[in-house]
Amino acid sequence: MRLAELSGRSGVSTATIKYYLREGLLPPGRRITATQSEYDEEHLRRLRLVRALIQIGRVPVSTARDVVAAVEDDSRDQLSRLATAVEALPHIPGTERDPATDLARRTATELLEHVGWRFGLAIAGHARAFETLVAAIAALHRLGYPCDLADLLPYAHAAAELAVSELDLVEEHGTPAERVEAAVALTVLYEPVLLSLRRLAEAEESNKRFGDGP
Amino acid sequence: MRLAELSGRSGVSTATIKYYLREGLLPPGRRITATQSEYDEEHLRRLRLVRALIQIGRVPVSTARDVVAAVEDDSRDQLSRLATAVEALPHIPGTERDPATDLARRTATELLEHVGWRFGLAIAGHARAFETLVAAIAALHRLGYPCDLADLLPYAHAAAELAVSELDLVEEHGTPAERVEAAVALTVLYEPVLLSLRRLAEAEESNKRFGDGP
Repeated sequence: MRLAELSGRSGVSTATIKYYLREGLLPPGRRITATQSEYDEEHLRRLRLVRALIQIGRVPVSTARDVVAAVEDDSRDQLSRLATAVEALPHIPGTERDPATDLARRTATELLEHVGWRFGLAIAGHARAFETLVAAIAALHRLGYPCDLADLLPYAHAAAELAVSELDLVEEHGTPAERVEAAVALTVLYEPVLLSLRRLAEAEESNKRFGDGP
Repeated sequence: MRLAELSGRSGVSTATIKYYLREGLLPPGRRITATQSEYDEEHLRRLRLVRALIQIGRVPVSTARDVVAAVEDDSRDQLSRLATAVEALPHIPGTERDPATDLARRTATELLEHVGWRFGLAIAGHARAFETLVAAIAALHRLGYPCDLADLLPYAHAAAELAVSELDLVEEHGTPAERVEAAVALTVLYEPVLLSLRRLAEAEESNKRFGDGP
């Protein structure tokens, strides 16, 4: 397909697509004439991922480039490509080492042990998601809000159930390359779905307990 | 307590506390001498909330001021104060009206009907969390990723279960004023807990399906 069709099918303007091409976020098309190139389904799929990262994930262009490079790296297996891509996504910055952080690290480790996440425990030393969890628990500790094992368990159970249905969704996608892309895109795209539903559910439950209608 | 003790107990520097006082995020202390004021437990609690909003929620100072004003508004009941405070928290900007948004609004409405969130349906016309949900579903539609009712239901179920345990946690906090503060703080502080646990659960499930260890 030509640039105009790629733009029409993706909903991304031709100017933005040209920018992504210049920045190396999309592989170049197949040159047809001096001024025209041909694009295929793979460009469309990659464009959707880049759009998800930048527009929904609010990921900087340089980070999106790292994520795309990890997804594209054929020298590695699917799991390791996915892990590198997700690691490149933005996380909350970790905090300095202090007593609250040490306590939080113990709580987080205890939580993973309790739910039996052996892979999580194995990667805890270098996974940014684990560091984010530690930082979030440390902030709760420092501010004096409840966050012991019993308080955290419902979140781990909810996350585990969601991961099963998410991976089911990912496995519906055909080839391994498509699956890695879908997994990264769904990680980013379902974050606002989850957070907004959580706020609506909180409103629902607050109304049930404290409100008088409807 | 004096400023130094307020700083020690909250872990927030005296310079930052003075800044919050100047910006109206904290009520002034009771003046003792020309240069010293006395602060109480309410200052400490408010300081924790402000810290949660700004440091973890990455909320701008002006937004934090709106949230605190809503929490403080004694003229209104607990539920309405909580609703206004949560509405003031940052949301993903909504999108323009287009076919994907219209479809997403129907899907979101259908989802709330399916899970029986009557309060959510009643506030859907003006709740920013609902608009965020619509925008997130529209983005999934536009990018060609799955997001029909069956795909979204697990997120709504997870959110409903979490809301119950969150409100249990909130109800452990004494007075109604404290509860509104705790609800706002926990909404913000548990977001990174939930998102990081979701990423760890995804890694766990990916490893189970595609990996070969540990």
